[in-house]
Amino acid sequence: MADKEKKVTIGLDLGGTAVKIGIVDEAYELLAQTSIPTGAERPYEQVIADMGMAAAALLQENGWRMEDCLGVGAGCPGTIDSKNGVVLYSNNIRWDNVPAAAGLQRYLPVPVCLDNDANCAALGEVTKGAARGYRNVVFLTLGTGVGGGIVIDGRIFTGGHPGGAELGHIRNGSEHRRCTCGRYDCLETYASATALISDTKKLAAQYPESVIWELCGGEAERIDARMPFDAAQAGDVCGRMLVERYIRHLADGITDLANIFRPDRIVIGGGVCAQGRNLTDPLNKYLQENCFAASTAYVPQVITAQNGNSAGIIGAASLVRQGMR
Amino acid sequence: MADKEKKVTIGLDLGGTAVKIGIVDEAYELLAQTSIPTGAERPYEQVIADMGMAAAALLQENGWRMEDCLGVGAGCPGTIDSKNGVVLYSNNIRWDNVPAAAGLQRYLPVPVCLDNDANCAALGEVTKGAARGYRNVVFLTLGTGVGGGIVIDGRIFTGGHPGGAELGHIRNGSEHRRCTCGRYDCLETYASATALISDTKKLAAQYPESVIWELCGGEAERIDARMPFDAAQAGDVCGRMLVERYIRHLADGITDLANIFRPDRIVIGGGVCAQGRNLTDPLNKYLQENCFAASTAYVPQVITAQNGNSAGIIGAASLVRQGMR
Repeated sequence: MADKEKKVTIGLDLGGTAVKIGIVDEAYELLAQTSIPTGAERPYEQVIADMGMAAAALLQENGWRMEDCLGVGAGCPGTIDSKNGVVLYSNNIRWDNVPAAAGLQRYLPVPVCLDNDANCAALGEVTKGAARGYRNVVFLTLGTGVGGGIVIDGRIFTGGHPGGAELGHIRNGSEHRRCTCGRYDCLETYASATALISDTKKLAAQYPESVIWELCGGEAERIDARMPFDAAQAGDVCGRMLVERYIRHLADGITDLANIFRPDRIVIGGGVCAQGRNLTDPLNKYLQENCFAASTAYVPQVITAQNGNSAGIIGAASLVRQGMR
Repeated sequence: MADKEKKVTIGLDLGGTAVKIGIVDEAYELLAQTSIPTGAERPYEQVIADMGMAAAALLQENGWRMEDCLGVGAGCPGTIDSKNGVVLYSNNIRWDNVPAAAGLQRYLPVPVCLDNDANCAALGEVTKGAARGYRNVVFLTLGTGVGGGIVIDGRIFTGGHPGGAELGHIRNGSEHRRCTCGRYDCLETYASATALISDTKKLAAQYPESVIWELCGGEAERIDARMPFDAAQAGDVCGRMLVERYIRHLADGITDLANIFRPDRIVIGGGVCAQGRNLTDPLNKYLQENCFAASTAYVPQVITAQNGNSAGIIGAASLVRQGMR
């Protein structure tokens, strides 16, 4: 049982199918956690009520009173007005202009902070994770899309207006790939796990002898983002081409961000990062060769995220103490 | 004669051929100015001594004492360590690790601030210029290269380490153009005045009947960045193609910056901006169509800089009061 003398913080990670709820201590150690289905098809008031009540129950079940709780942080996909605690627009949960922070506060009468989930994950890697102790960090999450989070001087930078830090939506390749945002050739269309899987399906179709077909049991629909890496490791030509191309696009996007932010560290998260140094070694090599003024100025190191499945909870919980500094 | 009851600030704009020196009041109005040759081939100590003495003389000649001077701001091209007042590397004046702020302070015993010239110009547009009163501004200067300056919450953002805010060095086109920084296809290789002039020479060679040949008197070496715009205005096909292509590349880079920073305004400076709304109207149209979440989030307006030839002085002088807030 945790030390009840010390204050705790609640982190809420609101996803399309589930809401993860956790209680963390001042070192961002996860003391208790639970998960509930989002039920995003319901009116948002009901979703928020479920989240608030489940968080309050988790506190109580573990022996904390509301007075022991410093505050609640919530991370949500989409365009967030963090100053006013409003979800302006979230495609995943179909929310449009939802005052989520005020809604949660009805059930959790403590300070409530709200931010974009990628911003939260970025902050979580700074408070407890791969970039712990660093003040200036750029975070990229490589999943269905490419999300971005920027930490400047220890705090999340969301942009002058909501809708900033959309690091997956900077120009990258030149194959005229249509992005979900409407623009062409965004980084997301080359460097997301979705893009890698789609590219793998296309190229493997031209290499019937590729190891990838063994890995997926001959079923293209079973191809995942790990298979091209595994195939490349096994010396497969098709796999190598895919991995080299993927890394070049990602490296190009990361170089842009290094030239703009010149941060202490660039952290990459998402499933693809299980590749570890197979991914970061060539990324760091490219950055050393292509970063502006690499011979005279600091070149940030690229590292993989550490918070894994708890990234959302830890990041969201970090919003609370961050706002108090 | 200016009101001697009020404190003034000195702005120094250190360029490859000349140093511009100005005295500004609290509203950043230019009260007096002069200019001296840089003489960059000499040891840096002599360059700094000349700058310091010329600034001190300008103060005295106009009736101010050193006690009337709040401080000195200096803008310099290159990679600047603004925290320590050191020019890490400047190609234009061939300085390498020069403690310029400390050097100036020997002649001007007041606080001395140093920053990159594009950062200064960005700040100057916020304190007195096109973006006056805005807190979050991204600035691009389109000249020999493409320089960048970022103002976040009213202050210059230089990056976590020196060498950030290099907005000309983000990936743009796909023609494999080698950039001066060593990388390929940087925004600078498509959107600088240099790039526009080079593109104009190449395309005009394929259009012997183009109006551009009238404008330059048949001499390719006389082609400047205004001619393609003038030709396009006159209905010339070659001119139109050049302007459309130039604007598309610039618009793409600006869209990246809008998605990352979501600022109040994006300000473009440099000679090309004399085109005014011929340039900003299509840029704003592209941004409205391509910016992430344009239908639900704020889309920043693109405007042209206003400080013109005084941008360097006003921006550098702004460093002083900015640091005091």
